[in-house]
Amino acid sequence: MAALNARKRRFEVILIRHDAHAEKVQEVIDLAEQLGVAIRRVDPKEIDSLAHGVTHGGVVAICSAKHRTSVEDLITQLDETREAPLLILLEGVDDARNLGFTLRTADAVGAHAVLIKKHLWDFDETEVARPASGAYEKLTLVQIDTVAPLKQLQARGLQLLGCIAGVNTTLFDADLTAPTILAIGGEKRGLSGAVREICNGFVTIPTKVGGSSLSLSHASAISMGEAMRQRWIKASKFAKI
Amino acid sequence: MAALNARKRRFEVILIRHDAHAEKVQEVIDLAEQLGVAIRRVDPKEIDSLAHGVTHGGVVAICSAKHRTSVEDLITQLDETREAPLLILLEGVDDARNLGFTLRTADAVGAHAVLIKKHLWDFDETEVARPASGAYEKLTLVQIDTVAPLKQLQARGLQLLGCIAGVNTTLFDADLTAPTILAIGGEKRGLSGAVREICNGFVTIPTKVGGSSLSLSHASAISMGEAMRQRWIKASKFAKI
Repeated sequence: MAALNARKRRFEVILIRHDAHAEKVQEVIDLAEQLGVAIRRVDPKEIDSLAHGVTHGGVVAICSAKHRTSVEDLITQLDETREAPLLILLEGVDDARNLGFTLRTADAVGAHAVLIKKHLWDFDETEVARPASGAYEKLTLVQIDTVAPLKQLQARGLQLLGCIAGVNTTLFDADLTAPTILAIGGEKRGLSGAVREICNGFVTIPTKVGGSSLSLSHASAISMGEAMRQRWIKASKFAKI
Repeated sequence: MAALNARKRRFEVILIRHDAHAEKVQEVIDLAEQLGVAIRRVDPKEIDSLAHGVTHGGVVAICSAKHRTSVEDLITQLDETREAPLLILLEGVDDARNLGFTLRTADAVGAHAVLIKKHLWDFDETEVARPASGAYEKLTLVQIDTVAPLKQLQARGLQLLGCIAGVNTTLFDADLTAPTILAIGGEKRGLSGAVREICNGFVTIPTKVGGSSLSLSHASAISMGEAMRQRWIKASKFAKI
């Protein structure tokens, strides 16, 4: 449903088990018909052989991979919105599930796009999409191979803020209502030197001394949650005037 | 190391593969000796047959299960700290991994304890402890079977705040610097009726309209991150005076 609704993939055909309960798949059938996507009723065995895992619910779509937005298209998109851009740059994600959950949080807080390095596209798409729970379809994902696109975005007024441990400025001191790229690195190696070198500033999540570290997806959630908070407060103030 | 350091389990013996690299296990050996815990060098096969999964690193401890703190002991602990208590109540967690990650975040932000229902103790302890990355050992975990202990805590001045969708008060409007129990429910059924009935108030994370929902562990991270922020700001103000 999320993939059909997002209209970002090219669909060949949707396969549905011929014994699938009508009420469970009716929504898919209706939307597919509306969008002119072919449906074929098939043997359960055919579905099982095509699907990843067993939780396919009797429905499999044969479709193009998720579209990677170019930096040029991203800039066009950002120009069209009136909101101050909030972009998330992820480096060093070591697990498809963590990436999926982070995309889900990014979509929930209203981030405009997630920028990821080429190797993150090597994850099994299904393993990323499942925990993302629809966000994988809706979110704008941009592949970043060098820091050049980041510099392009900086030239258009976005600040690149690196989330790293041990700096004096906390996440809570930064102005995240400004056009921002939040750069978040993996648990093992953190942010790359190339990204650190061009950051406009660095922020730290002031976790408890002697406490546990945060996982990448939960550090991301706290960072994005703070951006959401600052933007929410600012919007509420405007609404009151 | 986390389990030894936390001193909350009773250790029978620590088994170490006889071919384990000395430098990798030296830390464990030193601390075990200091604490008077026996060590036995064993055949790799013996370790494999005892361990869950394959990522045991050649070390397995035979020890008591994680201690469940009673509400009485929790109250004593809270009385001993000068900080305003921050407790997390989790309901309807459907996955050991999500529980583990949530405990890790709770420890990172400095929560004083996590309250969980009896059925969450039925998860495989190892499956919870692994993503918790040490937090499972350090954190105070209290088993809650009825709402009576919550009422006891309320009687001692803690506010019980339910995180639910669709109320007008946002997480950001609540005073989380006060002694607080944050109640967070599962993605499927949310908070139980019994807990909702005694909540002192409800808060919502103002996610994007039409955006994805948050997973339990990421909604928890944003909620706990906001509590950490408010407490951080308050402490900074005190420090300046």
